[in-house]
Amino acid sequence: MHFTSEQLLDDGVREREFCLGDVPGILWTPPSVSAPVPLILLGHPPLGLRRMYPRLVGRARRAVAEGFAAATIELPGSGDRPRWTDVEQARADLRRAVQAGEPVGGEIIDAVVLPLVDKAVPEWQAALDALLSLPEIGGPVGYSGGVISIGIRLAVVEPRIVAAGLFAGRFVPAVMFEEARRVTIPLHVLLQWDDEGNDRQAALDLFDAFGSEEKSLHANVGGHTGVPQFAGEDAAGFFARHLR
Amino acid sequence: MHFTSEQLLDDGVREREFCLGDVPGILWTPPSVSAPVPLILLGHPPLGLRRMYPRLVGRARRAVAEGFAAATIELPGSGDRPRWTDVEQARADLRRAVQAGEPVGGEIIDAVVLPLVDKAVPEWQAALDALLSLPEIGGPVGYSGGVISIGIRLAVVEPRIVAAGLFAGRFVPAVMFEEARRVTIPLHVLLQWDDEGNDRQAALDLFDAFGSEEKSLHANVGGHTGVPQFAGEDAAGFFARHLR
Repeated sequence: MHFTSEQLLDDGVREREFCLGDVPGILWTPPSVSAPVPLILLGHPPLGLRRMYPRLVGRARRAVAEGFAAATIELPGSGDRPRWTDVEQARADLRRAVQAGEPVGGEIIDAVVLPLVDKAVPEWQAALDALLSLPEIGGPVGYSGGVISIGIRLAVVEPRIVAAGLFAGRFVPAVMFEEARRVTIPLHVLLQWDDEGNDRQAALDLFDAFGSEEKSLHANVGGHTGVPQFAGEDAAGFFARHLR
Repeated sequence: MHFTSEQLLDDGVREREFCLGDVPGILWTPPSVSAPVPLILLGHPPLGLRRMYPRLVGRARRAVAEGFAAATIELPGSGDRPRWTDVEQARADLRRAVQAGEPVGGEIIDAVVLPLVDKAVPEWQAALDALLSLPEIGGPVGYSGGVISIGIRLAVVEPRIVAAGLFAGRFVPAVMFEEARRVTIPLHVLLQWDDEGNDRQAALDLFDAFGSEEKSLHANVGGHTGVPQFAGEDAAGFFARHLR
């Protein structure tokens, strides 16, 4: 892991871009750190870090204000990383089906999501190795948002992640419902009740499937991008409970 | 309205019992009040104030800690108030059906709940008149918990209530789903995901029916009485947003 740039944001948050092999990422830490701090990994949709930056930095500022570090990495096939021909083809099939108003078949969903999960999860784990080796970061670690299937897989396979905030999204492969049963860490699940592209019943079924003894579903009025401000505050309370 | 007793609780909360006609109630206020404070009405199931007191005083302490007053009144036919023969008969029918594991017919639910709503709601409104005439209470007013049908009716008919925290319970008359569509104030709805006696789908349908532009459903693992501590904290945040 090597840092490629560093800046102080207006509120004193320290923002560093890094590369881990060929995977770019961003780390945000408090202005000064006297003891190692917990870490929140910020998930995001596969639209590229540059495009997602405004929302990511907002979430990072909130995490840092709570006394945590926050970090994210680019997803495979997104942003400045090399195109990923097979998955791009599957994404094009998916977009075509959605635009035509056709039901999206399970095989298309699997082809779009499962390779992403399989490739991204070990990269997030490698990033975790590198981040936790920094003197200013100590854990525990939370995972927040992004592609829910990545969050589920990470919650199952990565014991250093002790709590996860997930965003109920569409296009969840059927096999992930099985993995959801094996999740046991505390979960905070956001659902936008009127999400145009989301199957509400599937989201409720997925919440039901999680094996965690502590799991909360927070459903709010509004579409996919209409998550109310206070929902972020409730999620901050969830991480404060589990990472402090 | 006349006060019948007064005591200071260990944390300085001022607790006064009162009677409004033949309806007993309890008012909790901060130790000292320099300006009129908002008010949260504390709903409860029809089990009698005395039996519900430990849970009510816990909720009241939390409200007072936020700078609010809290108040509750006895429901008709409960506690020290005169028995209510017709409703008692309907409740016996309901208990029999539940104990026998039979489906509870809509006519039994209507006979148990609708007279209670019709009689209790004007009493809560009269209590609101009296409470808001006290110099230390100024509003705005929130309503929290208890029989959800009472909360729905109050939210529809009582314009002084600006926000409601509701607890998704069982035995909701079909007609209340229609009233729910007419609710427009911000709502915070708690649902215990594994509530043995609750029909989860009916609770989700009721949440969907509410007409409010701001409504949040917070579902947590556990049975009817297993609401986690942090769910109360989220509800406190909801009232703080709307009553301050």
